[in-house]
Amino acid sequence: MKARIRITLKNGVLDPQGKAIQNALGSLGFAGVSDVRQGKYIEIDLAATDEAAARAEVDRMCRELLANTVIEDYAFELAKP
Amino acid sequence: MKARIRITLKNGVLDPQGKAIQNALGSLGFAGVSDVRQGKYIEIDLAATDEAAARAEVDRMCRELLANTVIEDYAFELAKP
Repeated sequence: MKARIRITLKNGVLDPQGKAIQNALGSLGFAGVSDVRQGKYIEIDLAATDEAAARAEVDRMCRELLANTVIEDYAFELAKP
Repeated sequence: MKARIRITLKNGVLDPQGKAIQNALGSLGFAGVSDVRQGKYIEIDLAATDEAAARAEVDRMCRELLANTVIEDYAFELAKP
C-alpha cells in the first residue's frame, strides 16, 4: 500500500519559501497568483495491506517523525499499489 | 482556484533524503516500510476561474520554474476554493 503525505505550514506561520516562489512567478510574468505555500511531499511504500491499520501507522509516523505538529499540518491518502 | 502541485524525483534518481527518512522510521520501530521518496508540495492560489486556462498556466509554471524536469516529475490537481 502506498501512502501519499502532504506536510504544510499551518496558517499564520510565515512561509518565506512560498513568498520567494510567488515573487519569482511574478517576475516571470504569471499574473493573478495571490498566494503560494510550500510544503513537503512524502511517498511511503508500506507492507501493510489492511487499510485501517495502515492509516493508524502512517498517522503515527507523521506525528512522531515526519511533521512538526507545532507549526505544521499533515494530510495523507492511501492508495492500493 | 487552488492548485496543489506535487514534485517528485524521477524513478532511478537517487533520493538520499527519502533513504534517511526510511532509516529513521526503521529506528523508531516502524516495520514494513519498503521505500520512501521525498518531494516538494506547493499550493498556489490563482485568480483564474477557467479550469482549462488554469491547467495550462500551472503546467507552464511547473516547467519554467517549479520543477527541474531533467530529474523531477510533477503532477497537480485543481480545486475550486
